[in-house]
Amino acid sequence: MVNVGFIGGTGVEGRGLALRLAAAGVPVAIGSRSEARAAAAAAEYNSALGQPLIRGVSNREAVVFAEIVFLTVKFEQTTAAIESCRDALVPGKLLVDVTIPVRFEHGHPVYAEPAGGSAAEFLAERLPPGVPLVASFKTMPAKLLADLHSELQCDEFVCGDSQEARGRVIDLVRLIPTLRPVDAGALKMARVIERMTVLAIQLNRSHKRDGARFTVVGI
Amino acid sequence: MVNVGFIGGTGVEGRGLALRLAAAGVPVAIGSRSEARAAAAAAEYNSALGQPLIRGVSNREAVVFAEIVFLTVKFEQTTAAIESCRDALVPGKLLVDVTIPVRFEHGHPVYAEPAGGSAAEFLAERLPPGVPLVASFKTMPAKLLADLHSELQCDEFVCGDSQEARGRVIDLVRLIPTLRPVDAGALKMARVIERMTVLAIQLNRSHKRDGARFTVVGI
Repeated sequence: MVNVGFIGGTGVEGRGLALRLAAAGVPVAIGSRSEARAAAAAAEYNSALGQPLIRGVSNREAVVFAEIVFLTVKFEQTTAAIESCRDALVPGKLLVDVTIPVRFEHGHPVYAEPAGGSAAEFLAERLPPGVPLVASFKTMPAKLLADLHSELQCDEFVCGDSQEARGRVIDLVRLIPTLRPVDAGALKMARVIERMTVLAIQLNRSHKRDGARFTVVGI
Repeated sequence: MVNVGFIGGTGVEGRGLALRLAAAGVPVAIGSRSEARAAAAAAEYNSALGQPLIRGVSNREAVVFAEIVFLTVKFEQTTAAIESCRDALVPGKLLVDVTIPVRFEHGHPVYAEPAGGSAAEFLAERLPPGVPLVASFKTMPAKLLADLHSELQCDEFVCGDSQEARGRVIDLVRLIPTLRPVDAGALKMARVIERMTVLAIQLNRSHKRDGARFTVVGI
């Protein structure tokens, strides 16, 4: 089983992914800038799991531990987060970007298009050579993911320019019950998928819900 | 029951919408630049319906006939199509834009972002005052829509800056069996919805299908 690490694993996005993957039997380490905060979060996650499955470490140690590294900080913090672990991001590692660049105008979510066309493309340009980036878990509601009692019952879009890297993330998605991976092709499809989250946020607001997500019918 | 007209109703998008709406009991007129071509298409549609429900007329007459006017030409033809009917587009009419600005690069679909941010916003700027524009049927596969024997079983996103206009289109969507209207809010959400069609085209290609479409889970 592949080891999975989280850069910034103590927030709401990291929480759900770490819990779901650990529950599926994946070895998981969550990182934080503060080791103490990571250890406290890991203890809390393990309590939710009922088993000591997740370790809390520094961001850098989480990268060293893992073959697949999730970047689960806010988009604004991604560049600094990557820099802080750059020397550990060596070939053989794969980075999964789950971030959404969004701002709010008059209470409505607006996509804040990064240089490059999407957060995923922006970050791919900033990785060390030989470390592929895959975009996924962009449209997954964090709260839903973090509630282990909720069935996900939706699709998970996976895109990236390395087919082999996409395949490794798709294999990981498959481990999470009721979640179907959908191979969305090249990394630039993140321009679509990140914007879909803006639609989901809007629908959550207008319907007073927090779990709007997508399924593709007909494939 | 509201009258519905089509500017450019003889193509594949117009065909499916005209058939589904006429089958639901809506009075439908399909227009074309050529009245003869509209009449021939209407005869063929009526043969598919088994009843003479649809009339074929000029684009301008289709606009005069209708309260809700669908613009079902290719995006490149929209400006000329609107110009040709401008004097008939008077307050009380509502225009529904279903177009997708897409081009293909190395066999892959790419969104061709129009001035204004989306086809819908581009066109809304070009309508006579007092004629609201609503974007819908952007993500609906044309072939699937045109096959009356296929169940749609998906969501139909409706967006536009006039809530009243959105409501009128939502009421129309509701008439089509197994299709759920989803109010996506302001017109600028078309930036997301039009791009979703690019994802659907990509998924159709990679899965060798032609009916990829979307459902929102959790609302």
